[in-house]
Amino acid sequence: MTKPSKRIRAITGEGSDGWDLFYRAKDLIRQGVPVVELTIGEHDVRTDPAILDAMREAARAGATGYASIPGIPELRAAVAERVERVTGVATGPANVIVTPGGQAALYAAHQLVGDPGDRALHVDPYYPTYPGTIRAAGLVPVAVPARAEAGFEPVEADLMAAPEARSLLVNSPNNPTGVVYGEATLAGIARVAVARDLWVISDEVYDSQIWEGRHLSVRAWPGMAERCLVVGSLSKSHAMTGSRLGWIVGPAEAVELLWDLSTVSNYGIPGFIQEAGVFALAQGAAYEAGIAEPFRRRRGITQGVLAGQDVVRAAPQRGAMYALLDVRATGLTGEGFALRLLEEERIAVLPGESFGLASAGHVRVAMTVEDRAYEDALRRLVRLAGRIAAQRAHFPAELG
Amino acid sequence: MTKPSKRIRAITGEGSDGWDLFYRAKDLIRQGVPVVELTIGEHDVRTDPAILDAMREAARAGATGYASIPGIPELRAAVAERVERVTGVATGPANVIVTPGGQAALYAAHQLVGDPGDRALHVDPYYPTYPGTIRAAGLVPVAVPARAEAGFEPVEADLMAAPEARSLLVNSPNNPTGVVYGEATLAGIARVAVARDLWVISDEVYDSQIWEGRHLSVRAWPGMAERCLVVGSLSKSHAMTGSRLGWIVGPAEAVELLWDLSTVSNYGIPGFIQEAGVFALAQGAAYEAGIAEPFRRRRGITQGVLAGQDVVRAAPQRGAMYALLDVRATGLTGEGFALRLLEEERIAVLPGESFGLASAGHVRVAMTVEDRAYEDALRRLVRLAGRIAAQRAHFPAELG
Repeated sequence: MTKPSKRIRAITGEGSDGWDLFYRAKDLIRQGVPVVELTIGEHDVRTDPAILDAMREAARAGATGYASIPGIPELRAAVAERVERVTGVATGPANVIVTPGGQAALYAAHQLVGDPGDRALHVDPYYPTYPGTIRAAGLVPVAVPARAEAGFEPVEADLMAAPEARSLLVNSPNNPTGVVYGEATLAGIARVAVARDLWVISDEVYDSQIWEGRHLSVRAWPGMAERCLVVGSLSKSHAMTGSRLGWIVGPAEAVELLWDLSTVSNYGIPGFIQEAGVFALAQGAAYEAGIAEPFRRRRGITQGVLAGQDVVRAAPQRGAMYALLDVRATGLTGEGFALRLLEEERIAVLPGESFGLASAGHVRVAMTVEDRAYEDALRRLVRLAGRIAAQRAHFPAELG
Repeated sequence: MTKPSKRIRAITGEGSDGWDLFYRAKDLIRQGVPVVELTIGEHDVRTDPAILDAMREAARAGATGYASIPGIPELRAAVAERVERVTGVATGPANVIVTPGGQAALYAAHQLVGDPGDRALHVDPYYPTYPGTIRAAGLVPVAVPARAEAGFEPVEADLMAAPEARSLLVNSPNNPTGVVYGEATLAGIARVAVARDLWVISDEVYDSQIWEGRHLSVRAWPGMAERCLVVGSLSKSHAMTGSRLGWIVGPAEAVELLWDLSTVSNYGIPGFIQEAGVFALAQGAAYEAGIAEPFRRRRGITQGVLAGQDVVRAAPQRGAMYALLDVRATGLTGEGFALRLLEEERIAVLPGESFGLASAGHVRVAMTVEDRAYEDALRRLVRLAGRIAAQRAHFPAELG
């Protein structure tokens, strides 16, 4: 092969990203071994047949040609309305560009905020594609820790002290921690962004999954509308992961520039999928609550199973479809514990190390199997952690 | 708005891109003025209901979750098989990555071949997104002329003399000219690529629309399989423009790198669309010939209308759904002629200047309305050109 570019070779970064475990679990499943799969953030329900019917109708009615590149007007309007309802910030169709999924939105946003070689901050723990997304956009990712001791929320002083950069990527409700940023945290982020003239890219794809308090968007703080790009998607809120339908909400001038980028990077999104998106959004907030309901129940199950023992502790679980569990009492890394959980209990979870340094010694559990199987798996996880911790207490020299 | 990146502001380049005319036509249509629309390369038939049925079936059967990022195995295999059949080059699934359309494939390919600041060559005339696609990927576009006098095929000496670069983008069958590159041209491209260690990005999205001779892929020439990325799509061959389903075929190592890029730039393509693509490709070559047939007929109509006059001449029209017409005998630019055609005859075509310097003084006619309307529009175009040329002959001083 002729020599490829440096940047494409640099996307994956160095070392294991912990997805080895994910592929190991897949291998076991392929061999017929029954594994409880709690690795991927995907609903255990499929996309609603009513949404698929709307897609079918749109396609049969002729929405099979090139669609308007920034998104069909009805979808831009529906997204603007939802964002305004959820965040309280005035938002019009000119503030919205439709993207082929939330991941594409994160990638496009980073191309807007900086030029090759510029730094881009992101909070740690983070969704594992973040650093690669930033590198693929030619920027240099710099992690800012949101430490377990601070409840996994980023601290203003850390943000202020981070190296010179063009942007800060935040994510609340957070994957993998389940933390929902509070007012003080968001106010701090906004102050830092204004003081340092940073763009804020706010990944809010879990905004419909809130178990405590309410979703707040950093875009609502003073001075933020002009420097904030909110990333959203129908994947999590409407169980439409496979439809690849997302958006960026930001200043109208930014949307114009992102339109130029979409013209050359995707030339628009299928019109029939966009019309299905309009239908999905028209179902309103109660519908979204219904899609989130199984995770709300399983979050309750999680809290119940963890009560009455103190080996495994959950990160503040206020939103999103995950439980981030602290297994440091076992003396193992998150990866070490996840491997034993897979080998001994046939339960697949992801090591916290896959999500950054700040979540080391944790494992992320996706609450994505039906309630009883979920509860059973979680009980077995806790028992395994208890056994390992007890052995460690008896043989501290060997295992400590 | 906080300051955006230089690169995103640079995508559109300077000056008018001639799409003004396109938007002017759209305005007239909105006002209720009947305009014959011959600007866009989109079929006058919609996507086959049988393909939409296959999509519906796949979605109802559960293909609504995250799909394999490089493409589902069945689609990668079907694309490999088609490419091998059409080009004669051994191709396996590992040589194929699925993309959200041909435009996304062009964009991804340029990110693989070079780093920011590197030069990327492309042939002129060109599809209007090419320079912006290259700029958005951080590269510097350099046009290499394929002159009207050389039948709009690039000449080896020009390619050899072009500035130092990482890649060369070619497109045969060609938009806007309708030229299909011959063996000598492709051999020359291959020699230059090997001699200069260039990647060749070969946009072959019109490979099913051949009116004379046969489609040849530059990937078939010696030394090319390791340095060639072929861009394909179902848009033109299967009237699926709105499904946004394309691919890149290249060395397996390149596909691995493009997989990394897809993970962060799109996270996969809807599985139900991919399954519709598998169904579409299974219809075989005869089906594709059927989709191409209306353009074959209209190419015949074009040749008939142009015969017996010598004011308007067509570029060698051996493939693709366009006629590139030389209107220099009118003394007008392509843009000037297209404007008069829109104002006086209510026929919308695109100026050759929108496609580069080498097609100045031409207009591109998309053969995308039903045969009789097409023939009538073309006759009126020829008559208008004749009138303008005749006036010019009488009043050369004023108009020459």
